[in-house]
Amino acid sequence: MRVIGIDPGLRNLGWGVIEMAGSRLTHVANGIIHSEGQDLALRLCSLHTALTAVIARHAPDAAAVEQTFVNKDAVATLKLGQARGIALLVPAQAGLSVGEYAPNAVKKAVVGVGHADKGQIQHMVRFQLPGVDLAGPDAADALAVAICHAHHLQSAGRMAAAMKGKVA
Amino acid sequence: MRVIGIDPGLRNLGWGVIEMAGSRLTHVANGIIHSEGQDLALRLCSLHTALTAVIARHAPDAAAVEQTFVNKDAVATLKLGQARGIALLVPAQAGLSVGEYAPNAVKKAVVGVGHADKGQIQHMVRFQLPGVDLAGPDAADALAVAICHAHHLQSAGRMAAAMKGKVA
Repeated sequence: MRVIGIDPGLRNLGWGVIEMAGSRLTHVANGIIHSEGQDLALRLCSLHTALTAVIARHAPDAAAVEQTFVNKDAVATLKLGQARGIALLVPAQAGLSVGEYAPNAVKKAVVGVGHADKGQIQHMVRFQLPGVDLAGPDAADALAVAICHAHHLQSAGRMAAAMKGKVA
Repeated sequence: MRVIGIDPGLRNLGWGVIEMAGSRLTHVANGIIHSEGQDLALRLCSLHTALTAVIARHAPDAAAVEQTFVNKDAVATLKLGQARGIALLVPAQAGLSVGEYAPNAVKKAVVGVGHADKGQIQHMVRFQLPGVDLAGPDAADALAVAICHAHHLQSAGRMAAAMKGKVA
C-alpha cells in the first residue's frame, strides 16, 4: 500500500510517497512543487497540474495533508488556505480518501514529541526511510505526514484484526 | 462578452453570469453551489465539479472572484481560503483570466459607496439587471462581482480606444 503525504504551500508544496508493507515503511519518491508569479489563479492551476501528475505517476492508495499552521497573519492564512484547497482536491479527484493531521500529531508520530523542530523531523524521516534523498524541508514534512498516516492506518488495521479475532 | 462572478464559500458558493454588450449589461444566470458533510476533500471536489459544469454550460469569456473578507477567526479564514482556491482554479482551468476585487471595490462599483450592506447590493443588482431572479444573497454578491468586473473591462476598453485614437 502506498501513501502520499502533502505539505501544502502556495510557493512550495512538498510531497512524499512511501510504501507500507506490514509495519515496514520504504521511501518511493519525494519532491517540491514550486509556483511563482503575480497571477494567483494561474499559480493554483499549475499546482493542480503538477500534483495531479505526481499522483498519476506514483499511484498512491491513500493520501494525507498537513493541517496548515494557522498563524496570526490573516493574509498568509488565506494564501495557505488556497493552496491547501488544491492539496485536498487533487487526491480526492483521484478517488483517494484524504486524512488530515495537525502538525503536532505529525511530529509526535515521527519524532515522538509534539514540539519537534524542522531539523529533528528531517533527522527522523531519514532514520525511518533509510537512503532517502530529501528534496528540501517541505518534502521532509510531507514524508512525515505520510509516515504519520501510515502509522494511523497500521493501528487501524491492527484494531480491525484484533476485533476480528474477538468475533471469531 | 460574458462575465462570471464568483463569491467563494465552502458551504455556499455564489455564482452569477452576465452578458456585456457595449455599456449594456444583461443577466444570463445565477445560482448557489452547496457543499455539506464532514469530509473536506470531498466537499472541495464537489464544488470543483459543480463550478466546472456551470462554466461549461454558460461559457463565460472572463471571470472575477471576490477577495474573501479576512476576519479575525483564523479557522474560518482558512476554510474560506480553501473554497477560494477552487473558485480561482476552475475558471483558470477553463482558460479564463480571473480578476480579483475587494468587497469594498465591488460595493463601490455596484452601489456607489464602499460600505453598502447586503440589502443595498441586492437592490442595486436587481436595478442593474432588470427581471433577475436571485438564487440568494451569495448569488447577488456574485452578480455584483461580475458587474464590477464588467465596469472594469468597459473602462479598460474605453481607455484602449482613447489611446488608439491618440496614436492614430
